[in-house]
Amino acid sequence: MVRWEPGTRDRLQEAALELYDSRGFEETTAADIARAVGLTERTFFRHFADKREVLFDGQEFFQAAFVSGVEKAPSGAAAIEIVTSALESAAAFFPAERRDYSRLRQRIIVANPALQERELLKMAGLARTLAAAIRGRGVPDPQATLAAETGVTVFGVAFLAWLEPGEERPFFAIETAVLDELTALTGGPSAAAPRA
Amino acid sequence: MVRWEPGTRDRLQEAALELYDSRGFEETTAADIARAVGLTERTFFRHFADKREVLFDGQEFFQAAFVSGVEKAPSGAAAIEIVTSALESAAAFFPAERRDYSRLRQRIIVANPALQERELLKMAGLARTLAAAIRGRGVPDPQATLAAETGVTVFGVAFLAWLEPGEERPFFAIETAVLDELTALTGGPSAAAPRA
Repeated sequence: MVRWEPGTRDRLQEAALELYDSRGFEETTAADIARAVGLTERTFFRHFADKREVLFDGQEFFQAAFVSGVEKAPSGAAAIEIVTSALESAAAFFPAERRDYSRLRQRIIVANPALQERELLKMAGLARTLAAAIRGRGVPDPQATLAAETGVTVFGVAFLAWLEPGEERPFFAIETAVLDELTALTGGPSAAAPRA
Repeated sequence: MVRWEPGTRDRLQEAALELYDSRGFEETTAADIARAVGLTERTFFRHFADKREVLFDGQEFFQAAFVSGVEKAPSGAAAIEIVTSALESAAAFFPAERRDYSRLRQRIIVANPALQERELLKMAGLARTLAAAIRGRGVPDPQATLAAETGVTVFGVAFLAWLEPGEERPFFAIETAVLDELTALTGGPSAAAPRA
């Protein structure tokens, strides 16, 4: 019988991130992580498929947050409103108390090219899932793909801003500001120029 | 002394793509490709580092086309004009006579997850290079990153449209249409609604 130990997974994850950050991702083994919290390597592998999964765990919930936002947008919503709803829903994943964890995770990923690739593929997977959900709301391509890619771009830029030292705005406030920047960008000079 | 054989590289590339398409990328060896054009494996490796490079060769010129467009934008150009100039410059890479080659290459990449990953990383690299070039034109972040990511999204959507059977518009015409779609998307319902 597998003994259920509440918090084991969280303890393993916390120890893993500390070791990845201090020692390097490549230099840390599953056994090191388990040992740091007084557990065996076997216990580690009951919770995570491998040491990379510690960092990419929960991707299905992350994507599901975006998709749920797509589904929550009111009937007849324009593509940009659907994307905004997805971004708002995803923002719930990043409450203020997650900032320090996210900063630590980001530092680990930036330090390792293979992890950066994995992160890029995760975002590409998100864009595909999001595009399918937006098509499911009756938005045809290429608009659905454009809307999804735009949503992922806004999310990515907002995420990096959210991690900045001293940044205190909530995640969705930053997403909204980035969306506004994007509107200003694509509005171009004629929209920005004063009307005669 | 290495004998210079004009056209060898092109012949190897053409044979490689035919084999990747008919037999599968994984199932084709460098020796197969060389043999198909009456050459040795050693000659293949004088031209390409590996069989994947046959498909991703010339990436530096592809990125340079975008960067040269950024540099050609007039002084004081808005970020979107800089991106448009980059997209126009990149379009020169995709004349009508390249369509069949690009369709074949795309079919090979879509059939192989590892090649799809490589292609995604290529586009991510392009976005980074483009953002740096846009920053070099005095556009600060996050606008430069947003502009670059938007440019890469527009390029990607336009590229897939350009490959569609029966599509005959030139590449830049498609890019312009996709940019217009994006402006309509981010303009949102208030911009689309008639003004009182």
